[in-house]
Amino acid sequence: MGLALSFQQDCNNGCLEECAREARSHAVMRTLKAKDLIITPATTLKEKPDPDNVVFGTVFTDHMLTIEWSSESGWEKPHIKPFQNLSLHPGSSALHYAVELFEGLKAFRGVDNKIRLFRPSLNMDRMHRSALRATLPGFDKEELMECIQQLVKLDQEWVPYSTSASLYIRPTLIGTEPSLGVKKPTKAMIFVILSPVGPYFSKGTFKPVSLWANPKFVRAWKGGTGDCKMGGNYGSSLLAQYEALDNGCQQVLWLYGEDNQITEVGTMNLFLYWINEDGEEELATPPLDGIILPGVTRQSVLDLARKWDEFKVSERHLTMGDLTTALEQSRVKEMFGTGTACVICPVSDILYKGETLHIPCMENGPKLASRILGKLTDIQYGREESDWTIIVS
Amino acid sequence: MGLALSFQQDCNNGCLEECAREARSHAVMRTLKAKDLIITPATTLKEKPDPDNVVFGTVFTDHMLTIEWSSESGWEKPHIKPFQNLSLHPGSSALHYAVELFEGLKAFRGVDNKIRLFRPSLNMDRMHRSALRATLPGFDKEELMECIQQLVKLDQEWVPYSTSASLYIRPTLIGTEPSLGVKKPTKAMIFVILSPVGPYFSKGTFKPVSLWANPKFVRAWKGGTGDCKMGGNYGSSLLAQYEALDNGCQQVLWLYGEDNQITEVGTMNLFLYWINEDGEEELATPPLDGIILPGVTRQSVLDLARKWDEFKVSERHLTMGDLTTALEQSRVKEMFGTGTACVICPVSDILYKGETLHIPCMENGPKLASRILGKLTDIQYGREESDWTIIVS
Repeated sequence: MGLALSFQQDCNNGCLEECAREARSHAVMRTLKAKDLIITPATTLKEKPDPDNVVFGTVFTDHMLTIEWSSESGWEKPHIKPFQNLSLHPGSSALHYAVELFEGLKAFRGVDNKIRLFRPSLNMDRMHRSALRATLPGFDKEELMECIQQLVKLDQEWVPYSTSASLYIRPTLIGTEPSLGVKKPTKAMIFVILSPVGPYFSKGTFKPVSLWANPKFVRAWKGGTGDCKMGGNYGSSLLAQYEALDNGCQQVLWLYGEDNQITEVGTMNLFLYWINEDGEEELATPPLDGIILPGVTRQSVLDLARKWDEFKVSERHLTMGDLTTALEQSRVKEMFGTGTACVICPVSDILYKGETLHIPCMENGPKLASRILGKLTDIQYGREESDWTIIVS
Repeated sequence: MGLALSFQQDCNNGCLEECAREARSHAVMRTLKAKDLIITPATTLKEKPDPDNVVFGTVFTDHMLTIEWSSESGWEKPHIKPFQNLSLHPGSSALHYAVELFEGLKAFRGVDNKIRLFRPSLNMDRMHRSALRATLPGFDKEELMECIQQLVKLDQEWVPYSTSASLYIRPTLIGTEPSLGVKKPTKAMIFVILSPVGPYFSKGTFKPVSLWANPKFVRAWKGGTGDCKMGGNYGSSLLAQYEALDNGCQQVLWLYGEDNQITEVGTMNLFLYWINEDGEEELATPPLDGIILPGVTRQSVLDLARKWDEFKVSERHLTMGDLTTALEQSRVKEMFGTGTACVICPVSDILYKGETLHIPCMENGPKLASRILGKLTDIQYGREESDWTIIVS
């Protein structure tokens, strides 16, 4: 309550001074530059886990990247150093006001032993958009990408020798403003950590998920931050996830609005492959209208399907009413979530208003889900040439 | 994208194991106990600032309180130690997913030189509710309050010798889960820091604020976390605050819904004192319907006004339409924000749909705002006996 104070006080006491300081600082403001990278290698290296048995995001590599920023000086030199705890002022705005964002992408070791990143520029673009939404500093996306590549190169032995595992890359940008005013941070930090991750579907076969669809919790809303990868979107979603588990389901199907629009599933985007109301074969996903996270896998599925040009591909609203009618009329073929972790995750059931709606996704192959998964992993593991990947090493 | 993984993997690999671990841990789970408090005093003490010239939340006292928690062992012994940086695992869930909440209250040095807290149990109650919403651990509220009192006692010379300044107390609870799965944290930490704060209105006279009312940004929504003091509510609000400043206003008037309901102002609750549609003299504030933060000052204003019983006191919806009609008909007396920092903050103008609506708050005294401010500060600084304060020392 009442942190409004800071704005008022800034304005009373420090406005002219701040303008003068800003004018001065513009002269010496440093930008993020990969060529300034300082590398302090770890003296002891950790043992690498068997990727088949590692729980997602629990094991980290030997090194991390940190880049500090201040409104006075801009970006400091990027630093790759041994993986270690962060030393943060207890007033840091990330800890109080969630002035923070993150990204998630993967490095894959291909069949040719080359290490590839999958469409990383889409992650950098989204990271930059999230930064502006969070009033965190902008940065040169190509330079950050180059620093991340250097980090992956240094820890390249952590990229699993497997075409079902990968190295998860987690860039993070946090406000480190050391004061309690609710305001744009004057200090911030990018840090990037790496975590080897195993196969999502252990035996190469899909395991479909059951969903809990209840309008009690709403993930995101118009005028909010649901289209950015800001921390606040995730912490607020946890309680719903546990209520889904309590109700015997594995994930939340996030609904929106009076008409119970279908928006996302868990932390994934959602696709419906069906015969639509007009009798057309259609692959549909909710449009980027402000409440949907613009997923890299989402975009890739749309791009692939549009290139195939075999059925209608739509970004459109879908409601629970549309879905139940279609199920009654046996018009639903497949439903699946998409995300960096699983790539494609089929849906088997939805618990909605006390009834379980069965989605015949597995019964239908799932043909489309399998085809997309195959195509994407072929690109990621270098079985197929594509300008969607860049080679790190 | 796609952190859904963690749930699935937890379920595949670790479900039974986790249940077993939880069963074991219940046997030895420690609760938070003030009698376990360990105090490590600072060896050098910092110089105290002149509270009249300090910017809110930028100066901290000599000590801080930390209490660590794990799902295996429960709450560790509370520790008061020299104010210092936190050492956090870079995977900590507070930094990625905003698994975090905070509180704000004040210690006042009264005219009798006694140090008082104002209704702290309301803060502890809200903190506990926020913890459950964020899937952070619960705690014994009385025991935490006792630890905070010990901290204030130790740093009591930091409570300004002034009846216009105070010591701001910032309890914080963060998830320190050291892994990237989007899940309930298995580690967490309470930390409490203290910051001396000066008078909000420097010369004892109100300075009213101008507001920017635009439905472009929405602070909170039904099914979200707007009624809890979670970090994510604040980081997502910053961009709107800067758009308000760009439009020549000082704060955001947060609107909601198709009918542009008036909800909160900046980080404060909002009150309208007017002659309502039925010709009744009324003090009105939006109801606690899920999108309003239950402010301690809000509750105190309602409690006072109801006790006075001189006019109607309502928790009700108010729309921009209600307000503009009332302004046209000269039925508006006062409008003000309420919060811990300023107590009462009058509103002078609202920029809405390109027009500036003038609120005749200052022209009307503001009589009611002044009376409430006087009453509350009389209680806080011990000029009036009240069971709303507890004496620390």
